[in-house]
Amino acid sequence: MKLLEDRIRKEGKVLPGGIIKVDGFLNHRVDPALMKDLAKEIHRYFPDEGITAILTCEASGIAFGEACAEEFGVPMVFAKKAKSDNIEGGLYQSQIFSYTYKKTVTLIVAKDWLNASDKVLIVDDFLANGEALRGLVEIVRQAGAELAGIGIAVEKGFQPGGKKLRDQGIKLHSLAIIESADENGITFREEC
Amino acid sequence: MKLLEDRIRKEGKVLPGGIIKVDGFLNHRVDPALMKDLAKEIHRYFPDEGITAILTCEASGIAFGEACAEEFGVPMVFAKKAKSDNIEGGLYQSQIFSYTYKKTVTLIVAKDWLNASDKVLIVDDFLANGEALRGLVEIVRQAGAELAGIGIAVEKGFQPGGKKLRDQGIKLHSLAIIESADENGITFREEC
Repeated sequence: MKLLEDRIRKEGKVLPGGIIKVDGFLNHRVDPALMKDLAKEIHRYFPDEGITAILTCEASGIAFGEACAEEFGVPMVFAKKAKSDNIEGGLYQSQIFSYTYKKTVTLIVAKDWLNASDKVLIVDDFLANGEALRGLVEIVRQAGAELAGIGIAVEKGFQPGGKKLRDQGIKLHSLAIIESADENGITFREEC
Repeated sequence: MKLLEDRIRKEGKVLPGGIIKVDGFLNHRVDPALMKDLAKEIHRYFPDEGITAILTCEASGIAFGEACAEEFGVPMVFAKKAKSDNIEGGLYQSQIFSYTYKKTVTLIVAKDWLNASDKVLIVDDFLANGEALRGLVEIVRQAGAELAGIGIAVEKGFQPGGKKLRDQGIKLHSLAIIESADENGITFREEC
């Protein structure tokens, strides 16, 4: 999606270790107009498929998830990390490794908010190693719900998450796939 | 705001200890249409005041913050809890006590995304003891920015946060103020 690629080229920063910072418009300061454009594009890719819920992961997935939920006209559920005392009753749970925080965290979703009658579109702002998404897919399976697919804003194509998910036959669409990022600039994968 | 009060009466649950769960539409599963209505009401209360940024706190403030940012046509910045390795450079920081997690956490905002030219509206989904909001107000002050006010979805009027903030002269508007909540039901404060 050219709009997003242009924005990443213009405002993204490449840090050592292949870290790409897009925190000026995507995941610390959020541009709501861009979120809406990204959500419309996700909706074009997953049109009229009977999706009943958007599932994402706290914290940085929530803004994109909210925009997608508004576009699809369905609720957005966000998985929480670790257990707070305010979550009662049954939980779907999945353990993932957080590369950001360098530790294992548990994703949880209250059973009240997803069940076997749901058709779920998972969305997230970023896909790199794919751990968060692996956890979200596992939660959809625990719920017995149908997985419509996964919509991502920015995928790091040089990390293994995208391939692992596509190899499982999951319909995964990323709005921008970064093929390489270094001091010479950012290169995107050509859209198929 | 009657729409929100009706929704809380219909779908909210009161747990022992005055905990009010509204996680079916506000802070675990999120209803995007309701978020939009709440954001419009916040905009009516803070109209045309030259607001340049919405500031909220991860995680459950983000969906409401995103809806408000879209309504005001400005970016939304969300404070993060604790430091991840991906945040470089200068940070505004404020320590707060999280009653949810029963520990002290540090709210952080990268200095890149708020400065003295900003006029900031803080929003959050919930106000009880007001610790998160105290931290966010401190961050606005560290930035040298102007505080336009605070917009809240649900305030627990029987806890001290709202009074503490109003006593400082901060313009605080809550869309629903719960006066009491127990096995007999939920009572709201009359709108002034």
